[in-house]
Amino acid sequence: MKRLVFGVQYDGSCWHGWQTQPGGETVQDALERALGRFAQCVIATNCAGRTDTGVHATEQIIHFDTVLDRSEHSWLNGVNAFLPSSIVVRWVHKLAFFDPDRQDNFHARFSAHARTYHYLLYNSCIRSPMWSKRAGWVYRPLDVDRMRLAASHLVGEHDFTAFRAAACQAKSPIKHMYKIEIRQQGDLIVFSLRANAFLHHMVRNIMGALIAVGTGKKDPDWIALVLQSRDRSLSAPTFMPDGLYLSQIEYDERWQLPQNSNQNQPWFLSMFEDRKCDTN
Amino acid sequence: MKRLVFGVQYDGSCWHGWQTQPGGETVQDALERALGRFAQCVIATNCAGRTDTGVHATEQIIHFDTVLDRSEHSWLNGVNAFLPSSIVVRWVHKLAFFDPDRQDNFHARFSAHARTYHYLLYNSCIRSPMWSKRAGWVYRPLDVDRMRLAASHLVGEHDFTAFRAAACQAKSPIKHMYKIEIRQQGDLIVFSLRANAFLHHMVRNIMGALIAVGTGKKDPDWIALVLQSRDRSLSAPTFMPDGLYLSQIEYDERWQLPQNSNQNQPWFLSMFEDRKCDTN
Repeated sequence: MKRLVFGVQYDGSCWHGWQTQPGGETVQDALERALGRFAQCVIATNCAGRTDTGVHATEQIIHFDTVLDRSEHSWLNGVNAFLPSSIVVRWVHKLAFFDPDRQDNFHARFSAHARTYHYLLYNSCIRSPMWSKRAGWVYRPLDVDRMRLAASHLVGEHDFTAFRAAACQAKSPIKHMYKIEIRQQGDLIVFSLRANAFLHHMVRNIMGALIAVGTGKKDPDWIALVLQSRDRSLSAPTFMPDGLYLSQIEYDERWQLPQNSNQNQPWFLSMFEDRKCDTN
Repeated sequence: MKRLVFGVQYDGSCWHGWQTQPGGETVQDALERALGRFAQCVIATNCAGRTDTGVHATEQIIHFDTVLDRSEHSWLNGVNAFLPSSIVVRWVHKLAFFDPDRQDNFHARFSAHARTYHYLLYNSCIRSPMWSKRAGWVYRPLDVDRMRLAASHLVGEHDFTAFRAAACQAKSPIKHMYKIEIRQQGDLIVFSLRANAFLHHMVRNIMGALIAVGTGKKDPDWIALVLQSRDRSLSAPTFMPDGLYLSQIEYDERWQLPQNSNQNQPWFLSMFEDRKCDTN
């Protein structure tokens, strides 16, 4: 028995989220169908982070166990041949050490110690077909400095109950937000959030609150009161999923996963990079 | 009677090209339906460049005549309310001078003196769901310098019969190619072509030939022989439409169109900009 790890990318606008459903129209369903066709047996996968309907992943991490003895290259090309254009396996890694009887094996979800999501927002009085289903859209002008001030209240270890969906199954609402970075370039704003883990709808609920601050509807300090209240009903509505990208799951180096920050980051991030120059 | 000019943006992956068809599934059909619903009468439009199935436009220019007296703002919001998310009117301009009995009126197609198309190509051994229908894909490594050398043979005034579709309705195959610029950034390559006008399939046929050179299948000089032959059958196959963006139609300044190069250029161009620094 071997444990295999895959780096998977998908355009979530075509799918009803990650997690398998009776209708079979989820990313997990499509991926498990392709795995099944390649392996000629039923394969059940575990993922690092279950994404919602419409949410994208530049690098979702999944694992599964198999007795099938094929090369990583063979898994990569074989499974991709059975996947639709909206889903692709970027890399395959066979774990060197795996003992099903031990507890300290690699697990896509439980071994992850940090996740990064990026939210791309198009802020323009006119919507853009180019960003439809790829970015959120707000037509009222947003004040980035106000949003940065608001976001700073969320950094650190907090009880994020006020930003948690009713259906959330996480054991604890206490998460550690390591970073919220907000960068603007012309009509585009990118929000990068890194935490040990996220609750259900947490990024979209935070986005809704930050936008309420950015448009001037709420003050930056209001978000601190919402956080302290632990009351979801005091916050803003859940924002649209269109611009949300799961992009980096962090694991211990001992697993030797072939993760590459040039590959797992969304292409649009390069537009926001500081153009540092050596000037006098 | 007034002549109105619109700057229109669309995601071509949802449509059977620009030009109206009996099935009604073209961009022109969708736009004229929206204009008809707003104006409560039949409106026939003229465009600057008829794009193929799957080809996008960051700024297509159209015009039409109407007796309806509404503000530009009212046209903009009214028509956009009836358009699907894959099409949007970016701006509306009412021409200050229009006399239907004169010959020198503005015409979206005949008044244009240059057009720019950008082709975005994803060059990676693994396809990307993020670029599906938004960029062309070549999995074999491409040599950009070889492609630049090949492209240089096409700059200038030439008979482009060898790069013309059989169905092309243009009066003359002689066009003036002002510029072909090829830039690379990681896995992405952008080809920018500016000419007085383009024949049917001309950009996609040129792309097919440049890719044959880039992969090493043909020598850079071969493209000069193909051009001189005026024989379509000697060239490479027409390349996929997915990465093609019509983006800038140029007119005389006297028409005072509210064109803005920040708006009509595709967002991805900023990734290829030279990051010029003042260094010692």
